[in-house]
Amino acid sequence: MAGALDSLDGTEPRLLAAMRHAVLLGGKRMRPQLVYASGTACGAREDDLDAAAAAVELVHAYSLVHDDLPALDDDALRRGQPTVHVAHGEATAIVAGDALQALAFSLLADAPLPDACRVAMMAELASASGAAGMCGGQAFDLAATGSEPITLAALERLHAMKTGALLRAAVRLGALAADADPSTRAALDRFAGALGLAFQVRDDLLDIESDTATLGKTAGKDVAQDKATFPALIGVEASRARLRELARVMQDALEGCRGDTTALAELGRRVIERNH
Amino acid sequence: MAGALDSLDGTEPRLLAAMRHAVLLGGKRMRPQLVYASGTACGAREDDLDAAAAAVELVHAYSLVHDDLPALDDDALRRGQPTVHVAHGEATAIVAGDALQALAFSLLADAPLPDACRVAMMAELASASGAAGMCGGQAFDLAATGSEPITLAALERLHAMKTGALLRAAVRLGALAADADPSTRAALDRFAGALGLAFQVRDDLLDIESDTATLGKTAGKDVAQDKATFPALIGVEASRARLRELARVMQDALEGCRGDTTALAELGRRVIERNH
Repeated sequence: MAGALDSLDGTEPRLLAAMRHAVLLGGKRMRPQLVYASGTACGAREDDLDAAAAAVELVHAYSLVHDDLPALDDDALRRGQPTVHVAHGEATAIVAGDALQALAFSLLADAPLPDACRVAMMAELASASGAAGMCGGQAFDLAATGSEPITLAALERLHAMKTGALLRAAVRLGALAADADPSTRAALDRFAGALGLAFQVRDDLLDIESDTATLGKTAGKDVAQDKATFPALIGVEASRARLRELARVMQDALEGCRGDTTALAELGRRVIERNH
Repeated sequence: MAGALDSLDGTEPRLLAAMRHAVLLGGKRMRPQLVYASGTACGAREDDLDAAAAAVELVHAYSLVHDDLPALDDDALRRGQPTVHVAHGEATAIVAGDALQALAFSLLADAPLPDACRVAMMAELASASGAAGMCGGQAFDLAATGSEPITLAALERLHAMKTGALLRAAVRLGALAADADPSTRAALDRFAGALGLAFQVRDDLLDIESDTATLGKTAGKDVAQDKATFPALIGVEASRARLRELARVMQDALEGCRGDTTALAELGRRVIERNH
């Protein structure tokens, strides 16, 4: 990911430090891995996936910077490190998030891919991260916090947008780079939808089951902030059962893909079994 | 501009209200006007300019929402109305800004233009609004506020990035839609550079000379916040002289353009003479 920031020589030093901080903390890199796993399953060359892998991670990184702000989740820890606004100030954190989003589109616009592919990738990333995707899910989350309990369907929609849309975009970007056939793309969409939901169910369970040291972020925040979560809504046991069901959906979906889906299956397993 | 938000049906209601608030307050629409004036001067069809005009205004709108936040300029008034975070809350304002940026790229990605043109437009907008442009200028502005006095060269660079980059992008997007020849594009770049700087010099003078009612935003904020401004650095008279010089640069640049530059010249005049 460091390479994605190479173009930033000459950037105002505090802004650059905040952008680096946001990107280089070394998270799980789930989204770039999904781009590579999906792209190679569909036959793309690894070089053709680099820009998309970096772009989707930049969008993810900007969203974390903004989510952690005092006006939103007000979180001081992320991946075991101070969050960007704690380390670099709130003003710089806001601007760094904005600049990371712009950089994501710059990388795709400058990618060594056919014009039509670049346009399709930018359309996908913009749609997945905007009001109909990640930002919209964030807004539904804000609306749900501290209000009347929401339904399971509303909670699933919220997460399909807030976390799921970008995970799905990662898988789609890989398929776009490979110009995959429609039936493979449909199967990958099913896989990615289940993976996105499983990611959030596991996240909710970890907030209850884990501690701050293992998690690298503040544990128990969901309960403290009266967040709508799967365990709060359907209970811990039913949440675990839902995870097992989603694992089956992922397996089943991958059987509908041509190409070698080992890496995708492995990412799916990690989402289900992760401890942080 | 209302049309740009048509695709947002189904968006979370508070987020949509904040996005509408940001876009529909009815500012001067300088940037869309520059897209149309530049594009038609170069021979583009008006339909081919709509997406670019809307996209650049969406980026401008998101930047105002984020600039007005308490952690940045902490401004409660914009265009005579409550700012977005005052009306809709800080969390929603942050997310609405993010979603407006994504929407700008969605509009360009979906524009009815050749793929190569869309790619070039998105590259231009991303570069102009990111760390090397608008966001970077904002960061230099944050670094300059309340610190040692900066040089005139540093102040001009700051504004060339913070305000100038997006105004220049507006002019370039128009030229891109028309696939203008290199010498016309170079002349338009000179025009846009002078216009961007003139815009900021006039803005700084207005902050001193005008009152809050005329301005539609809080007057005298620059002095109160110890902002680096042209009048503070070189004095009011020298700032006015600089404006006159920039007016000549603009006129001169437009003489190097083929096509009808009447609308561009008129926009240049308005920047120099505006009272709010």
